[in-house]
Amino acid sequence: MIVIGIDPGTASTGYGVIYDDEAGNIHLLDYGVIKTTAEQSVELRLKTIYDNLLALIQLHKPQSGAVEKLFFKKNVTNAISVGQARGVILLAFADTGVEFHEYAPTEVKTAVTGYGNASKSQIQAMTKALLQMAEIPRPDDAADALAIAICHMNSSAVARLANNLDDA
Amino acid sequence: MIVIGIDPGTASTGYGVIYDDEAGNIHLLDYGVIKTTAEQSVELRLKTIYDNLLALIQLHKPQSGAVEKLFFKKNVTNAISVGQARGVILLAFADTGVEFHEYAPTEVKTAVTGYGNASKSQIQAMTKALLQMAEIPRPDDAADALAIAICHMNSSAVARLANNLDDA
Repeated sequence: MIVIGIDPGTASTGYGVIYDDEAGNIHLLDYGVIKTTAEQSVELRLKTIYDNLLALIQLHKPQSGAVEKLFFKKNVTNAISVGQARGVILLAFADTGVEFHEYAPTEVKTAVTGYGNASKSQIQAMTKALLQMAEIPRPDDAADALAIAICHMNSSAVARLANNLDDA
Repeated sequence: MIVIGIDPGTASTGYGVIYDDEAGNIHLLDYGVIKTTAEQSVELRLKTIYDNLLALIQLHKPQSGAVEKLFFKKNVTNAISVGQARGVILLAFADTGVEFHEYAPTEVKTAVTGYGNASKSQIQAMTKALLQMAEIPRPDDAADALAIAICHMNSSAVARLANNLDDA
């Protein structure tokens, strides 16, 4: 199974694509960021995010995708901006028929490190180890997207196991 | 000139389409709301908004569009939800090459009623009068979208006048 994790933002949207083999081990397929510049109008920045994500989905053909649930305590302006980026990302999932899931930040931390209050550097170190990467994934938005993808892969694997037990 | 005003929301996105004649009088072309239901997944709700707005743009062929600037003081969850709807609306403008403008709520109130602190009912009564409608436009989201369209039409007319004076 191939899954994609997304960390939405108007200036930088992180993505991480991973797959699992028949033994249940996970592997890195692709990761990076979709960058836009402040010189572009906001609608063209959103179009850049949408077009690039669509191309990534068509390239890697993930069976499902995941985005972190949003919890903003402050900074409502930022919430609107991230909301707008999130909107075109969810549209790309809807347009391609790729199933879409949301996970709370504590779920992502627990899935990757086993600990719901893990620091960013702990998560990144575990992401590197789990995906057998030579370096800590950079930049942060791409690392966050990989952690979301790992969380979603674990959760999907558990769901598949439960389904198989039901069928047996 | 034909312009479209949009009032974004995940459950209900209002739209209003107006045009001006050679004498500079404005007229109603179309208005209403794009509704989605909570039974749908959020990504399908966003796809419904995007697809319907695209169809409206293709039907009426506006030269430009306008959305209100967002100012949320409270309720960040709502800011994310409105931000997501706004994201797919801006994408529809980018995808169709329709120029897009933003106006602050006080600009909309001043353009429609001449008074930056006008109440919702004052704005709706003026919208009805300006567009020679038989009834107050309903629902509120559609009325808001018409007010945004009127604000944008006024602002565009002033800009065209200034251009004509420059050219003369």
